[in-house]
Amino acid sequence: MGTEAILARTAASALVLALEEWAGILGSSHVVVDLASRQAAETATFGTTQTIPAILRPANREELQKCMRIANRFSIPVYPVSSGKNWGYGSRVPYRHDCVLIDLSRMNRILDFNEKLAYVTVEPGVTQRQLFEFLQSRASGLWLDATGSSPDCSLIGNTMERGFGHTPYGDHFAHVCGFEVVLPTGQIAETGFSRFTGAQAGPLYRWGVGPSLEGLFSQSNLGIVTRMTIWLMPAPEHFEAFFFQCSRHDQLESLVEALRPLRLQGILRSTVHIANDYKVLGGIQQYPWEETRGATPLLPEQIGRLRDRLKFGAWSGSGGLYGTRGQVAEARRCLRQALKGKVDRLQFLDDRRLAFASRFAKLYQFITGWDLSRTLALARPVYGLMKGIPTEQPLASAYWRKKNAPPSRPDPDRDGCGLLWCAPVAPMEGRHALAVADLAISILLDYGFEPSISMTLITERAVACVISISYDRHEPGQDEQAMACYRHLQRELTERGYYSYRLGVQAIPDGRREDGQNHLVRAIKDAFDPNGILAPGRYEAV
Amino acid sequence: MGTEAILARTAASALVLALEEWAGILGSSHVVVDLASRQAAETATFGTTQTIPAILRPANREELQKCMRIANRFSIPVYPVSSGKNWGYGSRVPYRHDCVLIDLSRMNRILDFNEKLAYVTVEPGVTQRQLFEFLQSRASGLWLDATGSSPDCSLIGNTMERGFGHTPYGDHFAHVCGFEVVLPTGQIAETGFSRFTGAQAGPLYRWGVGPSLEGLFSQSNLGIVTRMTIWLMPAPEHFEAFFFQCSRHDQLESLVEALRPLRLQGILRSTVHIANDYKVLGGIQQYPWEETRGATPLLPEQIGRLRDRLKFGAWSGSGGLYGTRGQVAEARRCLRQALKGKVDRLQFLDDRRLAFASRFAKLYQFITGWDLSRTLALARPVYGLMKGIPTEQPLASAYWRKKNAPPSRPDPDRDGCGLLWCAPVAPMEGRHALAVADLAISILLDYGFEPSISMTLITERAVACVISISYDRHEPGQDEQAMACYRHLQRELTERGYYSYRLGVQAIPDGRREDGQNHLVRAIKDAFDPNGILAPGRYEAV
Repeated sequence: MGTEAILARTAASALVLALEEWAGILGSSHVVVDLASRQAAETATFGTTQTIPAILRPANREELQKCMRIANRFSIPVYPVSSGKNWGYGSRVPYRHDCVLIDLSRMNRILDFNEKLAYVTVEPGVTQRQLFEFLQSRASGLWLDATGSSPDCSLIGNTMERGFGHTPYGDHFAHVCGFEVVLPTGQIAETGFSRFTGAQAGPLYRWGVGPSLEGLFSQSNLGIVTRMTIWLMPAPEHFEAFFFQCSRHDQLESLVEALRPLRLQGILRSTVHIANDYKVLGGIQQYPWEETRGATPLLPEQIGRLRDRLKFGAWSGSGGLYGTRGQVAEARRCLRQALKGKVDRLQFLDDRRLAFASRFAKLYQFITGWDLSRTLALARPVYGLMKGIPTEQPLASAYWRKKNAPPSRPDPDRDGCGLLWCAPVAPMEGRHALAVADLAISILLDYGFEPSISMTLITERAVACVISISYDRHEPGQDEQAMACYRHLQRELTERGYYSYRLGVQAIPDGRREDGQNHLVRAIKDAFDPNGILAPGRYEAV
Repeated sequence: MGTEAILARTAASALVLALEEWAGILGSSHVVVDLASRQAAETATFGTTQTIPAILRPANREELQKCMRIANRFSIPVYPVSSGKNWGYGSRVPYRHDCVLIDLSRMNRILDFNEKLAYVTVEPGVTQRQLFEFLQSRASGLWLDATGSSPDCSLIGNTMERGFGHTPYGDHFAHVCGFEVVLPTGQIAETGFSRFTGAQAGPLYRWGVGPSLEGLFSQSNLGIVTRMTIWLMPAPEHFEAFFFQCSRHDQLESLVEALRPLRLQGILRSTVHIANDYKVLGGIQQYPWEETRGATPLLPEQIGRLRDRLKFGAWSGSGGLYGTRGQVAEARRCLRQALKGKVDRLQFLDDRRLAFASRFAKLYQFITGWDLSRTLALARPVYGLMKGIPTEQPLASAYWRKKNAPPSRPDPDRDGCGLLWCAPVAPMEGRHALAVADLAISILLDYGFEPSISMTLITERAVACVISISYDRHEPGQDEQAMACYRHLQRELTERGYYSYRLGVQAIPDGRREDGQNHLVRAIKDAFDPNGILAPGRYEAV
């Protein structure tokens, strides 16, 4: 027997022993080893080869701690997911082979809630839907900030990946505090004031005293966050959404220039989302197989015709105005002034107008010629997101290139939806936004994919672009073609200085960087995780 | 010769050798060893015994790196200060004996500035004054967020201590990014996107990709920040300050309750500062030695009489309204409504009214009976701070208990001003604010000091209280009395869960905490600073 075979046999017998111990802790029903479950967890929205020998489902922190101690004892790498809805970035698939998956979805308690001070404290299994329903059931005056991902995605999972949403609390990682973390060794650490017994400001003031460690645990493999306080936004006296369109592609430049001062001056307090025509079309329908007679990609002149017919722009944008009636009116005035001549259409929508428009859409169309009902169908989920109402709707777009309609319970991993997300950050300047868009359009079309792009004015100074490569995994060769496209795009973007705010398992650079930060992070990793068992490889290659 | 003596001699000769090498790098004029300079640096605003064998003054990052390598080679502990104006928390005095001081004030370049994207990139020696004058000289439309400390205090120094100011950018540590850090070993690390060659969003987006390390370097001894990007606020179309007063002490409770919703709803976008009568009196004048015939402390009934005579309240507050004319008008309306019946006076001030009032103060007093000129003298520096104009004025209050007037160039360390600051954080609830105030008042008066208190609504959910123990260090026994008072206060506050947002060298708890965070920080310290030479003890006791 060769050395490799001996090592493999040793690893296998370690795994068998560990599984037995884990089953002793969790009960055998929560140590999942059946082939179907494992294969499901090994499936992302793009091609991967990593295998998962088992799935552990701890019910609480103590069980998780014990699981980690066992993993250490047998030197078995583990990979935690909260809800595992990290579509476009790798879903539940670990970075390395043979990691045991730790599924935290059973740890789904809402541990604390304070209406007056506007916060909630949750475990990693708590989903957007669960928090939304919790707030509804309490008739709470607080709104969560929801992402456009599934209602079933984890709040903590999204925050630790530094995801973003649609309200003034859109930069999720900036609106949380008081973490409880299970370290790779199974020990516990708490951050901020929460670590002090009886601290009054634990859920209220982020920095605590002494070094602030929250950042260490985001986009890393240094610990598993098992508790987090999330700040919630009090519902404003008045909310109004705005929607705008530009008919020409190059208007993006002056549009971003016009919006930046409003973001910087706090007139727009929330993220603004701008989507190109491909992105909008993907929200309306699947790939127009009939019009194109089955040919791909959908070419610019073809989508141009669809734009004219369906009445949407080269760029469409939306955002929310939050405040008193007076504040919202003032923001509306400023926005109108700033976007004058920059956009071809600017519409405002509030609850009253939405209800009215829904009732009189047909009449409205008769009078104005504008097909309101189609716009409303598109607008309603986005409008809801801006008020913290999670929606299933954007998930349907993962089925863009499929030949069948999305099922009633969509699951992009299961259904072979191909999806790779690339998320570069650009300065909030028109020329940068346009440069990223042009690069993405040219590369994706070259590889035969539709360049679906959104640009989010995520902070006062930065634009987070999300470029989706959407395809059908069941088409032979498409996994490879999409990955080649992703790699090419990523390389060209970083060469121009547009680095991604977030990476997935697909992001394997040529070589590991050797800069100061990486050196530090490795030193911290060695100190926190001496056996290197927690999510090896995760965000290590940046 | 005993072991101790041998060790001392070895240390002394290592120091001599190191000083020679440092002088080789910096030039001997920047290796300061004269007694007067060392003694000045060993002097804080309270009693300390730590000695400083030398002061190094590197001119740039490369010199600093070399200094650190030499310190490592000879195992000599060093303690960096930016401007050293950390009054009330220890000034320039290190936590441990025999640390060589590294004075970073010569590293005072403004490295980058961008008017459009509203940021500036600075070195640690850049002061509030320097940045203010820089912005003025460029006729910039950007405002800095200034603290009430000296104009000569370092921007980076204050930010790394997580200080706060008066504008919507008041939480300093939340408005910076892109650090360059000299590690204890002399190596360099950069944070965020700045670490990538040619990154476009380095100064614009804080989190970068992968774990976020900025927090590690604040309130710690893990590295020396040598470059930081600070976001600046665009001057709003209109600015208006508000000032209010409560005549009764217990009104604080309903005041905080009334202000919280305005902070949470974003109607008040900036920090609000509330000061008690002792704090206000300290801003107007020195201790009333004549009225009290030399007796201390100034008792509640005595300050009550002064309040009536000088027309100020038990609590006085101020804040800024920033925005368009319409937004400011709307915020003013909301504030008026919220504070109705909660305060005894609410005044608004803008540039026009300030100029007008200054010209017609006498006439105004004649008509309204309100002594505007006194109010204006008090209001003007605070008004300026809210617009990012640094002021010397609050510094004068460090001379509260001195018998002579503050000199034209005040220096609290040199002049024997006694000052100990204690800075607990409380939830933004009236009952908590009042509990902290009452505790501070009772303890400080007990020890014979005036309870000077400010409460800053620093975020949407938390109040940072600053309690000053002010005394005359030239009075025998007062150093010990003040420190006993500080310790007592600190203990009582933490027992009630009000932990400090910031600590100084005076904060030595009974024993080192053994929680998860401390365990991690020590592991990081060991990895980053194997010889333990950087600021030993600093924030280690929390």
